[in-house]
Amino acid sequence: MSANTAPEWQVREWLNADAPISLAGLRGKVILLEAFQMLCPGCVSHGIPQAQRARQVFPDDALAVVGLHTVFEHHEAQGSAVALKAFLHENRVRFPVGIDAHGNGDPIPLTMRAYAMQGTPTLLLFDRGGRLRMQRFGTMEDMQLGAAIATLLGEAAP
Amino acid sequence: MSANTAPEWQVREWLNADAPISLAGLRGKVILLEAFQMLCPGCVSHGIPQAQRARQVFPDDALAVVGLHTVFEHHEAQGSAVALKAFLHENRVRFPVGIDAHGNGDPIPLTMRAYAMQGTPTLLLFDRGGRLRMQRFGTMEDMQLGAAIATLLGEAAP
Amino acid sequence: MSANTAPEWQVREWLNADAPISLAGLRGKVILLEAFQMLCPGCVSHGIPQAQRARQVFPDDALAVVGLHTVFEHHEAQGSAVALKAFLHENRVRFPVGIDAHGNGDPIPLTMRAYAMQGTPTLLLFDRGGRLRMQRFGTMEDMQLGAAIATLLGEAAP
Amino acid sequence: MSANTAPEWQVREWLNADAPISLAGLRGKVILLEAFQMLCPGCVSHGIPQAQRARQVFPDDALAVVGLHTVFEHHEAQGSAVALKAFLHENRVRFPVGIDAHGNGDPIPLTMRAYAMQGTPTLLLFDRGGRLRMQRFGTMEDMQLGAAIATLLGEAAP
Repeated sequence: MSANTAPEWQVREWLNADAPISLAGLRGKVILLEAFQMLCPGCVSHGIPQAQRARQVFPDDALAVVGLHTVFEHHEAQGSAVALKAFLHENRVRFPVGIDAHGNGDPIPLTMRAYAMQGTPTLLLFDRGGRLRMQRFGTMEDMQLGAAIATLLGEAAP
Repeated sequence: MSANTAPEWQVREWLNADAPISLAGLRGKVILLEAFQMLCPGCVSHGIPQAQRARQVFPDDALAVVGLHTVFEHHEAQGSAVALKAFLHENRVRFPVGIDAHGNGDPIPLTMRAYAMQGTPTLLLFDRGGRLRMQRFGTMEDMQLGAAIATLLGEAAP
Repeated sequence: MSANTAPEWQVREWLNADAPISLAGLRGKVILLEAFQMLCPGCVSHGIPQAQRARQVFPDDALAVVGLHTVFEHHEAQGSAVALKAFLHENRVRFPVGIDAHGNGDPIPLTMRAYAMQGTPTLLLFDRGGRLRMQRFGTMEDMQLGAAIATLLGEAAP
Repeated sequence: MSANTAPEWQVREWLNADAPISLAGLRGKVILLEAFQMLCPGCVSHGIPQAQRARQVFPDDALAVVGLHTVFEHHEAQGSAVALKAFLHENRVRFPVGIDAHGNGDPIPLTMRAYAMQGTPTLLLFDRGGRLRMQRFGTMEDMQLGAAIATLLGEAAP
């Protein structure tokens, strides 16, 4: 466990949310952050549906499920909020999704860079204290993810 | 079997192709035309992979497999060739794909309108004489599709 | 295509059938013969369900679907008709299934031996003239099987 | 949570085990008990593979995974240890499996009766104190099962 909290997310715009969402603002909940790209086949077939299943299995007041659109390739095709909105609508993604912000002319967006993510999908789990406890690039089994979330839920709040 | 040939496709631009492709130009081959939209979940999970399997099972000189991007919703998100190129690249679609042309301010593109397609995915089979022999909206089983293609392949050329 | 017809099946007992079934008696139909063992995982998960799908896709008067229980291992566990009946009932197998006969103290049953099958599942296709046209050990794709059956159905009867 | 421990299992014979296994003897571990029948399709396609995944995800010294062959139908076909041994071998089931004992002429075996199981597959979870904490007939999602096991693992030992 890292002693310090994780870097705050840097989001250009939030979809499926009434107001901006932050790591700090979710303190007290376990957080599943699903980093994806709308044209990444592994995200569409595995990462997004798994995050949706987590949303169904765990209660809202215990687990926050948040998407992060980390566009690091095909920027012109994936970069607009309009395209992402259509994607979320068609795939019935109801949880909040932030668009990872770009800066300094870097093709890799800021949050993706800050967490040194290797690609998409990447799944991150934060404990109730906002500490990053798991970061997984690629796929993981549902049973393992369910166990990891429940383990964090069983820890005392900070 | 219809007595007449089917309406020619009206395509704005071809991807994965060196030159324009037409129904008339494929005379002599059986043709599988897969009409899809890049943000349609049933196309991504079912229609496109099935067309790819057909491409692997049947030889090139007997069966032509062609995609048709029939954008009738989310035009801003799906309408650009750049977005479609990224989609084809990420999903490893190697067969030619035409972008169905729009006209007259109609949100439904011309070929989709001419064939009265109900939505996406829609699969169309043409015989060696260019006649439309099957049009299916939604999903169909691989075994049934394999049988339908082989049946058309067994017919004498026109 | 082999010039001669295939060896007749040697069956100890038929289930799901009112009378014995023979290769000769099915002349005029294309035949799918699914050789399996009830405790073979690949048969349960792939071979049997595929034969059931073929039964649904093609009409009875054109394609005969027949099972053959070729017990070559775990004879005590799989050898009884009672066990096989329970298996067919639980797995909703409705097509006729013959129990491949043993002889001469050979652990490999007679029909399996005559066709030199390598294991289970093995799928065999016979044309309308009773000639063996395909024999496949392991798995094959539904689209390929559908095409193979339709191709044989398109041939003139003998 | 029930105040008392659950009824002890009544097993005729153990497979994949050097010595008899009991609920009492596993005190201190969380226990997943998978009740199944070898000819039950839902057990073969869902229950058994899920128990195998649980065996892989959680360590041996924390979670015990145990099978229970609760034959309540097709007794002649499923009743022999020889048949079950062949089934376990073919399906690569490595965890211990007990054969639920019959008594009093009851077609439903004793442990199945004592726990009032409705059919197969039935999954039972016991906490470290040997108390029954979950009993589920039919299927459940991997994520939910992983969470339930991890929650019990997070509880203090009795």
